[in-house]
Parts: sequence; C-alpha cells; structure tokens
Amino acid sequence: MTTEDYTLAELAALTDSRLEGSGERRIHGVAPLESAGPDDISFLANPKYRAHLGETRAAAVILPDRESAEPYDFSVLRADNPYLVFARIARILNPVAHVVPGVHASASVAAGVRLADTACVEAQAVVGEGAVIGARCRIGPGVVVGENVVIGDDCRLDANASVLDGARLGARVHILPGAVIGGEGFGFAHAGDHWEPVPQLGSVVIGDDVSIGANTTVDRGSQGDTIIGDGCKIDNLVQVAHNVHIGEHTIIASGTGISGSTRIGRYCTIGGSVGFAGHLEIADGVTFTGMAMVIGNVPEAGVYSSGIPAMPTRDWRRSAVRFRQLDEMARRLEKLEKAMQKTKERDEQ
Amino acid sequence: MTTEDYTLAELAALTDSRLEGSGERRIHGVAPLESAGPDDISFLANPKYRAHLGETRAAAVILPDRESAEPYDFSVLRADNPYLVFARIARILNPVAHVVPGVHASASVAAGVRLADTACVEAQAVVGEGAVIGARCRIGPGVVVGENVVIGDDCRLDANASVLDGARLGARVHILPGAVIGGEGFGFAHAGDHWEPVPQLGSVVIGDDVSIGANTTVDRGSQGDTIIGDGCKIDNLVQVAHNVHIGEHTIIASGTGISGSTRIGRYCTIGGSVGFAGHLEIADGVTFTGMAMVIGNVPEAGVYSSGIPAMPTRDWRRSAVRFRQLDEMARRLEKLEKAMQKTKERDEQ
Amino acid sequence: MTTEDYTLAELAALTDSRLEGSGERRIHGVAPLESAGPDDISFLANPKYRAHLGETRAAAVILPDRESAEPYDFSVLRADNPYLVFARIARILNPVAHVVPGVHASASVAAGVRLADTACVEAQAVVGEGAVIGARCRIGPGVVVGENVVIGDDCRLDANASVLDGARLGARVHILPGAVIGGEGFGFAHAGDHWEPVPQLGSVVIGDDVSIGANTTVDRGSQGDTIIGDGCKIDNLVQVAHNVHIGEHTIIASGTGISGSTRIGRYCTIGGSVGFAGHLEIADGVTFTGMAMVIGNVPEAGVYSSGIPAMPTRDWRRSAVRFRQLDEMARRLEKLEKAMQKTKERDEQ
Repeated sequence: MTTEDYTLAELAALTDSRLEGSGERRIHGVAPLESAGPDDISFLANPKYRAHLGETRAAAVILPDRESAEPYDFSVLRADNPYLVFARIARILNPVAHVVPGVHASASVAAGVRLADTACVEAQAVVGEGAVIGARCRIGPGVVVGENVVIGDDCRLDANASVLDGARLGARVHILPGAVIGGEGFGFAHAGDHWEPVPQLGSVVIGDDVSIGANTTVDRGSQGDTIIGDGCKIDNLVQVAHNVHIGEHTIIASGTGISGSTRIGRYCTIGGSVGFAGHLEIADGVTFTGMAMVIGNVPEAGVYSSGIPAMPTRDWRRSAVRFRQLDEMARRLEKLEKAMQKTKERDEQ
Repeated sequence: MTTEDYTLAELAALTDSRLEGSGERRIHGVAPLESAGPDDISFLANPKYRAHLGETRAAAVILPDRESAEPYDFSVLRADNPYLVFARIARILNPVAHVVPGVHASASVAAGVRLADTACVEAQAVVGEGAVIGARCRIGPGVVVGENVVIGDDCRLDANASVLDGARLGARVHILPGAVIGGEGFGFAHAGDHWEPVPQLGSVVIGDDVSIGANTTVDRGSQGDTIIGDGCKIDNLVQVAHNVHIGEHTIIASGTGISGSTRIGRYCTIGGSVGFAGHLEIADGVTFTGMAMVIGNVPEAGVYSSGIPAMPTRDWRRSAVRFRQLDEMARRLEKLEKAMQKTKERDEQ
Repeated sequence: MTTEDYTLAELAALTDSRLEGSGERRIHGVAPLESAGPDDISFLANPKYRAHLGETRAAAVILPDRESAEPYDFSVLRADNPYLVFARIARILNPVAHVVPGVHASASVAAGVRLADTACVEAQAVVGEGAVIGARCRIGPGVVVGENVVIGDDCRLDANASVLDGARLGARVHILPGAVIGGEGFGFAHAGDHWEPVPQLGSVVIGDDVSIGANTTVDRGSQGDTIIGDGCKIDNLVQVAHNVHIGEHTIIASGTGISGSTRIGRYCTIGGSVGFAGHLEIADGVTFTGMAMVIGNVPEAGVYSSGIPAMPTRDWRRSAVRFRQLDEMARRLEKLEKAMQKTKERDEQ
C-alpha cells in the first residue's frame, strides 16, 4: 500500500458525502477515534462510541445525520452509512500498489500458458499447462496454479495458495494465503469392508469480486461444479465441500463448514464456526449466528441461532446432566398437570 | 483425468452387475439422473429420487433389485449397491492419468534421496535428505517432503502439502493440497509463570489407502507415533493431535478435531466438526453425527450425537436462558411432585 | 534432533531435582512408563498411572514427593513438578539441531534483505524486500517471508509457512508448517447490494517465545495491529482475526476461532474449538473448556464451559426437541407451582 493525501473537500466529492466546516484541510490517513492524529479522518457508526468524539484528535469525523457535531472542533462529513464512506476514503488514501508485470526468475510457468502482459508471477510460483491468467493479476510467491485454470482480470493470489485443475475465477477475485481451491472432493462409496473413491470430475467456478480466506478449502465438484457467486466474501479456515452452491453477496465468517451439495442463498450472513449438513437448501437473506448447527432446510429469510453460551463450569455441569433428562422432565411435568387438573376438578365438586 | 469409453456389457462384466436390455450401447461418462446425456450412465440409490427416473436422458441406469424399470427406455444394470457400482464405473471411465516420471528442473531433491525411477517430482517441490519415495508416486508442485520420510508406492502428494521429518506412508496414500503431516505436536509443561516445550520425539505412521484432506494437520507423536490405520479417509481441515491412533477404515468429515492420545476404533464414521477431548477410547463401529462433543470414552458401537439444531434466534434466546436454570427447574419439579403426592394422600384419607 | 547421554546425577543437577539411589547410571532417552527401556528415564505425574510403576523397565523415574518409591528397583528423581523436569530432561537429551547457516541455491532472497550470517534459508523459500532475519533463524523449505517482515533471533519458520507484509516477530518464535501470519483481515462495509473491502492497514506483532500451530491463521490488523503476547502457545488450525490481542502466556488449543478486536487476558487456557464473538474482553486467568461458545465479556478469572456432551442419538433427539420447548416448560412449571400453592392454602383453611 502507498499513502496519498487529499483535501477534505476532495474526499467529500469523491464519496458523495456532505462537508460541514473547512474543506481545505489535507487528510493523510484513517484511524479510529481514539488513536487518530491531526491529519487523520475517523468515523462514528455506533452511538455507543459517542464518548470518544469529545477526545479525538482527528481532523475530521464522518457522522450519521442524526449525530450532533456542535460541541466539537473537527470538520464533519455527513453520510447515511459512515462506515462505508470511511472504507471508501481508506481505499482512496491507501490504494493497492500497481502490479509490476513480469515473471520472477525462480517461478515456473509451463509452456502454453496464456499470461497477460500486465500480470506478474512472483518467486517460486508454479503455473501449470493450459492456464489462462488475466490482466493485472498478481500470482504471489509460492502459489500453485494448476493445469487449465482460468483466472480473470485483476485477481490476486496470495502466498502459497493453490488453485487447481480446471478452476475458473472471475475478475477481481482475491485468494488469501494458503487457500486451496479445487482440491479433490471427499467422496467414497462403502464397499462392505472398505471405502472406494468416487472420481471427482467437476471443478470450481468462482464469480467476480469474491474473496476467499487464508487456509480456506473449496473442493471441486463430483460431477457438476462447486459454485461461489459474485461478491461472496469468505473468511479464513472455511470448508466448502463438493457441489456446494453459494449465492451472490453472501458473507461467511471463519471456521464455518458447509457439507456437500448444500445450497446457500444470496445475501446470507453466516457467523463463525457454523456447521451445515449436506444436501440442504438455505433461502436468500438468512443470517446464522456463530456456531449455529444447521441440519435442516431453512426456507425463509430470518435470523437463526443455536448453541449454549459459556457459563461457569460448575453451573454448566448441572445443566448438562439435566439436558439428558429433559424428555423425562417434560413427561413428569405433563403428568403433574393432569394430576393438578384432577385435584382442581375434585375441589370444585 | 482422461475419458475412455466402454460398452454397457463390458461395464457390467467389469463390475459384476447384471445387465438388462441391450449391452451394445457405448458409455462415455457418468452423470446424475437430472443432467445425464444419451452417452451417460447414472444410478438410483435413494428411492426419494425415483421421480427423476422418468425424465432422465441417460443411456443406462444402475438400479437396486427392488426397483422396477418397466416403464423406462434406458438399459439397466442391477446391483446390490448401485452407488458402489457407479463409483467403479466412474473410475473405469475416468482413469487417473499415468505419472510421467522425472524430476522437474525447478524441484530440489537432496543428495541421497531414494526416488523410484517411475516417480515424479513436480515444479518447486523439495525432497529432504534420506527420504525414500516409492514407485509411481507423484510429488506435486510446491510440496515439501522432509528428511527421512518414507513414502510407499503409488502415493500422491498434492500442491503445497508438507510431509515432514520421519513420517512413514503406506501405499496408495493421497495427501491433499496444503495438508501438514508430521508437524510438531502441541506439548508444553507448565513452569509456574510460563510454558516450556516438551520435545516431540515421535513421528507419524500412515497405513495403505489412506486419504488426508486439504489443509488437514496430523501432528507427530511426543514419544510414540501418531498412527492412522489402513483405509482411513480424512476430510479437509481436520486436526489429528500427537499420539492419536485411528483404526482401519474409519472416515472423518471436515473440521473435526481429535485431541492428544485419543484412540478411535475401526470402521467409525465421524461427522463434520466433531470435537474429541484427549486420552479417550472410542470403540469400533461408532458413528458421531456432526458437531458432536465427545468428552468421555465410548465403549460400545452405536450412533451418538450432541448439539442444538439452529432455530429462530428469538426462540433460541429464551431456551438458552432457561438452559442455565435447568437444574433449578428439575428441583422445583421434584418438589411439586412431592407436594402433589401429599395432596393426593390427604385427599384419599 | 540428535541424542546425547548423561548420568542421572548430572540430570539431577541440571534440573534441580533430588536424586535417590545411584547417580552413576547413564540415561539415553525419555519414554512413558509402559514403553521405557533400561537406558530411559520416565515420570509419574498423575497418580492414576501408579500401577505402571510396578512394571516399568525404566532406569529412573521422576516422582512427586508424596509418591513412595520403596518397592521399586529404579532410581528416583524427586520433583515438585515431575512433568516439567521430564520436559527439561527430554530437551537436554534431544537438543534441537544447530542451524547450518546459508541460503539454499533454490531459495529466492530479495535484494536488500538483512539476513544474519548465522541464519539459514532452505530450499524454495522466498524472502521479500526489506525483510530482517535474526541470528540462528531457520527459514524452512517453501516458506514465504513477505516484504518488511522483521524476525528476531532463534526463530523457526517451518515448511510452507507464510509470514507476510510487515509482521514483526520476537525471539525464539516458532511458526509451524502452513501457518499464515499477516494475511489480510476480513473487513467489508455493507453497501446496500454488495460488500466493499475495508483496507487492512495494520500488521501482526508477535512477542518472544511464541508458538503458532500448523495451518493456523493470524490476520493483520485493520488499523492498529493484531498482537500476540510473549510466551503464548497456539495450536493448529486456530483463527486469530484482525485487531485481536492475546495476553502473555495464554495457551490455545486447536480449532479455536477468535473474532475481530476481542482481547484475551494473560495466563488464560483455551480448550479446542472454542468460539469467541468479536469485541469481547476476557480477563486474565480464564479457562474455557473445549467447544465453549463465548459471546459475552468474561470479567473474572475462573473456569467456563458450554456445549452438550454426546449421547446416544435416540436420547439426544428427544432432548433436542424439548430444548425448543424449554421456555414453555418453565412457564408451565411456574403455573403449576401457583396452582399448588392455592391448593395448599385452601387445604389449610
């Protein structure tokens, strides 16, 4: 990243936000309210951090309309979505470095690869036969691009990632370090006293503007493809099994596992360490909170949860024992209700 | 993979299945009922997909004995286990490409390595001193084989996998991309105000026909070895800690973690994201469903579960609060039962 | 590792433990009681393994003060913490091999790197511009060290690990195979119909004597840094998100995920597969048992748990259904109590 600087008026214009106060001030960086210096811009999205406004040294703060700025010295940018404007200003001030085209002397690029002139292949990377790599791509150090992989323009593949046989990536896809795209799916047929492999003949298709986290694994399909829609953002250490489809703009936090053939809708929000059984259908617009256990279809948008929040171990032990007795407790409760009903009826006679 | 083609009669003979209808038809591929074309063979294992039989364009379908084929045009192969026959035909039609022997110019093979003439070492791979690599092995791009590792015949190590110091692999072992075999176990002794490392002196021993998933980690033993039995199939992102033993033909889905010194029996089926405490003994033939929390020995075969299925968050919040009160609720229930008993006794006087 | 040998008296002196019996015996190795041979030393820390004392062939055993050694033939070292003395003797007998300085011919070290004369860079490793690597460091095969990374003395980076742009490591840090330090944090701003990336401008700062497990991921901070304190030990496949702070000497088992900006205290013990929500504060000295779900601050030291232990699936199904009815059950219980109270009052009239 390199750092640029802009006047506040320029930043307001570039982000369609409304300036209050002087627009002459030059802004060099972004920072949280607590640590911002006099050349920085900051933001307030959550009113619970309002107290920091009084103490910030920021030159300017991005505020929502409803938030009064009267008592403060800083300049103000007004925005409906302060965090989004903050993100955009952060990108303006810290543009991603241009790719320096070329193939490092230590990289290994097979004959017949179609590599854009403007792409770069860094040290120790491998590009297999038949691969196609688009304009301004950056194939990072130690990356393996397998045979016949197709990578769109402006993709970044970070250190030691593996994108394997036949995977197809759209434009502006970011594969983080150590991620594995297109590994063999986990398919075995039971043969009495052993398991036999089922050939995994499909591939992985990833849309535009997708991000895949560090050490995440996306398996190739068994017959059809594993599909990740445009705009999906997937965090680190996520498992996406063969034949899974993930709809556009769905976001998935770290540690989540999605079993084979499950289909997740568009615009879903999936917390960390959520587990999905296989062959499920999840509607558009579903949110799962962290560690949810998803073992049935979810046909309607909404927020879903499961799990037991941590508590002192002594209390937990007691409750966990009772959990096993829950059905019995429910039956006893029912029995008591009937007995009570009888008692009442008798009393009323 | 390359694609071959066979007549249906040939496929029936090769898989010991029973042909009904013409055996002359040439089969080029396998596909699900819904997407099969007129040169494909498909299968029905689960009666709930029976409706697809009426619409499939497949040339032939593998059916269980009980399933009527009367109304349909396709040829039929009869099998006790249609999915297994399907898997076998898929392998016949899509044989794994032969290994092209040789060491890529960019690979680094230490002096004194014993590498079979028929093995290949791909681009940027590293093979350390004293390693032994069997016939027809494929050491993929970017793979690191550590010192004194012994690899049997017909193994595949996929891109960027690491198989480290002293690990011993049987024949036909498949290590998927990014997997780490033989990393140092997690052993520390508490020394009052800090932790001190306990040397991890053992190694990893893997049997024949084992598959280890992408980015899965199998630690080397602290004194003895970590052992994975013949025929085990382990999915992506699984943790196998030091000194764990896994019995033959056990299958483990993604995200599962097995803590140190736990022993898992033969022919177990372990769902995704299951957690095992350390030093446990799990019998042969045990199944755990996904996200099960295993904190005690399981001395008997059977199916075991835990966890709470996801539900609407509003409902979940109420139940989760009550979970903490479960023991108290149980005591109140007992008290009520006693009171009711007294009431009854009095009424009966 | 190479193996040395010492007399028992020497080992007692080196570890401040008290010798009982002959000190002349030469000790070559460490081993568990069950498998120790006549040149080995073993230990008893947990009285439940006492039965093994009668059968061990070990030359010597490290015992706690309270444990009688009367009936046995072996020599004894007395120690308050037998496991710690065992760990120290194991390290004395199995010292880590000295680093052989030098850069492997196949490695790629950028111009301007400051690499200590005593460090080594192994095959196919990459060291980026501006990196600084301390004395006696071992940069393993296939490792990527990104630009401007600073690595202290005596660090080990194992096979295929990635330590990226600007990360700063203290002394004696051990990064296990495939770990990713300094990958981009997971930060996106919602922009109505898509997500936009928030630049991740911070880095990762790791203290002295830290261990980071295989395929673990530690993201760089969004504005400030992600910080891991001195002496922390982190197992495999752990996720440490951006801006997380982990206090000194905290130990974290495999599979745990820590969401963004959460702060964990010093001397905490975190079991396997624990999940932390973001923006939490966890006090010093907190223990979480495996699979705990941490969604609130924990201001006090203590032991905390959650989750449901695995049980036969048939029983589990019944309890899981009842869990959803828990709030209703609690209300019915309350109603019964009131009815019972009325009945009693009436009876007492």
